[in-house]
Amino acid sequence: MKPIPSFSAFARLFALGVLLVLGAQAYAQTDPLPSWNDGPAKQAIVEFVQATTDQASPKFVPPAERIATFDQDGTLWVSHPMYTQVMFCLERVPAVVKAKPELAKVEPFKTVLSGNREAMAKLSMKDLEKILAATLTGITVDEFNAEVKKWIAEARDHRWKRPYTELTYLPMQEVLKYLRANGYKTYIVTGGGQDFVRVYSEQVYGIPPEQVVGTAGVTKYGYGKEGKPFLIKEPRLLLNDDFAGKPEGIHLMIGRRPYAAFGNSTGDRQMLEYTKTGDGARLSMIVLHDDAEREYAYGPAQGLPDTRVGTFTQALYDEAKQQGWFVISMKNDWKRIFAFEQ
Amino acid sequence: MKPIPSFSAFARLFALGVLLVLGAQAYAQTDPLPSWNDGPAKQAIVEFVQATTDQASPKFVPPAERIATFDQDGTLWVSHPMYTQVMFCLERVPAVVKAKPELAKVEPFKTVLSGNREAMAKLSMKDLEKILAATLTGITVDEFNAEVKKWIAEARDHRWKRPYTELTYLPMQEVLKYLRANGYKTYIVTGGGQDFVRVYSEQVYGIPPEQVVGTAGVTKYGYGKEGKPFLIKEPRLLLNDDFAGKPEGIHLMIGRRPYAAFGNSTGDRQMLEYTKTGDGARLSMIVLHDDAEREYAYGPAQGLPDTRVGTFTQALYDEAKQQGWFVISMKNDWKRIFAFEQ
Repeated sequence: MKPIPSFSAFARLFALGVLLVLGAQAYAQTDPLPSWNDGPAKQAIVEFVQATTDQASPKFVPPAERIATFDQDGTLWVSHPMYTQVMFCLERVPAVVKAKPELAKVEPFKTVLSGNREAMAKLSMKDLEKILAATLTGITVDEFNAEVKKWIAEARDHRWKRPYTELTYLPMQEVLKYLRANGYKTYIVTGGGQDFVRVYSEQVYGIPPEQVVGTAGVTKYGYGKEGKPFLIKEPRLLLNDDFAGKPEGIHLMIGRRPYAAFGNSTGDRQMLEYTKTGDGARLSMIVLHDDAEREYAYGPAQGLPDTRVGTFTQALYDEAKQQGWFVISMKNDWKRIFAFEQ
Repeated sequence: MKPIPSFSAFARLFALGVLLVLGAQAYAQTDPLPSWNDGPAKQAIVEFVQATTDQASPKFVPPAERIATFDQDGTLWVSHPMYTQVMFCLERVPAVVKAKPELAKVEPFKTVLSGNREAMAKLSMKDLEKILAATLTGITVDEFNAEVKKWIAEARDHRWKRPYTELTYLPMQEVLKYLRANGYKTYIVTGGGQDFVRVYSEQVYGIPPEQVVGTAGVTKYGYGKEGKPFLIKEPRLLLNDDFAGKPEGIHLMIGRRPYAAFGNSTGDRQMLEYTKTGDGARLSMIVLHDDAEREYAYGPAQGLPDTRVGTFTQALYDEAKQQGWFVISMKNDWKRIFAFEQ
């Protein structure tokens, strides 16, 4: 009788193993997005991934063509009440004025130096452009990278008192990882500065610099001390990666139409449209900031005031519904918003 | 005595297996570049790869930073006596004239339609630019891709009577594969049209479209029939990816300085310089067309006539020697040139 219990013990162990493996697989298959509440948004993501990666599916997409693009500000991290890059520029003004003291008496630099937040919040787009040009250009690419690297490590936001890099949305980080685990190449396609975002994209999102498409200025190849070559950032725009500039930038930098795109504002409209109107399975999603408690609620689509950043109009909301883009409600679709929350 | 021979047979089989595995490894380690003759060029490539991928080496480069850039025309495939893309443009002229019959009586289109090769060879740069603008713009990105795909499959070169895509240099294909096998991301950085090269880069070089940097025009997002969005190619230059435009294009599209760069003409000078002057181990190599028998010999560096394409001046040769770039002699360094040769 001895062999039988032994066999049976083996069989039990084996069965347990199978259950563990299947259980783990089942868990992984049913919950790749643990910070998402069940609902149409989560379901759309999972169904899209399943349809495009299953060889038997008519919507199968070969691995080389699996491209997903993500807006950054308001889609991957907090951009309210001010873009992080604008904070960088404002905080860089004293250093720029130190190098060019004549700017101290000239607007808008005078207002920025005053430190008066209320006055700064009222600066016009034209003023902001002057500040951006003064703080983002006229230095070499290497100097700029070093400046951003230092600032992003030290700067803290005003509400959570944390590094900006911790204010990424956990549910979106899960989407990035889920797509990459399924063979998708993930790109940031941002209206923000390409050189700025590239400094931290790998560390913060696992997205290498060459997969960041953004607003880019001309750089000029020249020679510094001892004839060593450098690239200097010129105050001339090459690609305005917003609105129609997003699909144009995607063509320039990637050369393929994305299968999935994520945004949160009118600046993402054309990217979402371009993505969704491709052949086969395409996923366009748009984040609605409707959670005043855990993050922010703003925008005309909810009858709330418009803001300088990330405008979500009623027309955009209507178009999303009409075109089959999915609206992600931060309030209803996201179980957790930040990794630092429990 | 029976167990012993059996054991010994096993041991022999095992030893044979070990020898086979070790032998294959040793072979792979000593000959990653079988179409190269032993010499300083081959040695430089192997030493560069070993130094940058060995964790114990002071010149180790983390995988994410391993970027290698390759010029295309004259570096990866034949570009003499005429760039392949120019052949495409010339052969597309009849179709363009059919759509716009008024061009038939206007130069340089009249000359091209005449089919007189001698007259065509004398066309000025300005004439060529007119032909490029007429044949590369004014259509949608999707239409253009379809045109190139069709042409590249059907067109044959005049000397070997083969598809252009078979005229790639086998030794360089080995370098591409060898670098990729060692964690390098390989890019094409071409003065040719980005959209043109992207159509066949994956099939011909194993380089996906998003890893092709080239001369690029503006595209414009618009709407066609039934409001379907498209991107149309405009006759306005965005990036002239030649000379200083190569490092500028590398910064725009990749955002990192390459560790290795390969070129063959003055148009690659700044890319080779930019690469070589980075910190740590950097490899810059330049192909010299000195094999009149198996391919072509041309250029002032050999006291031969200058040509429209791929100028290799004496000054460039001197600079290569001075700056520690390696000159690859097609005649001496390459055992085989094309895969179709035995």
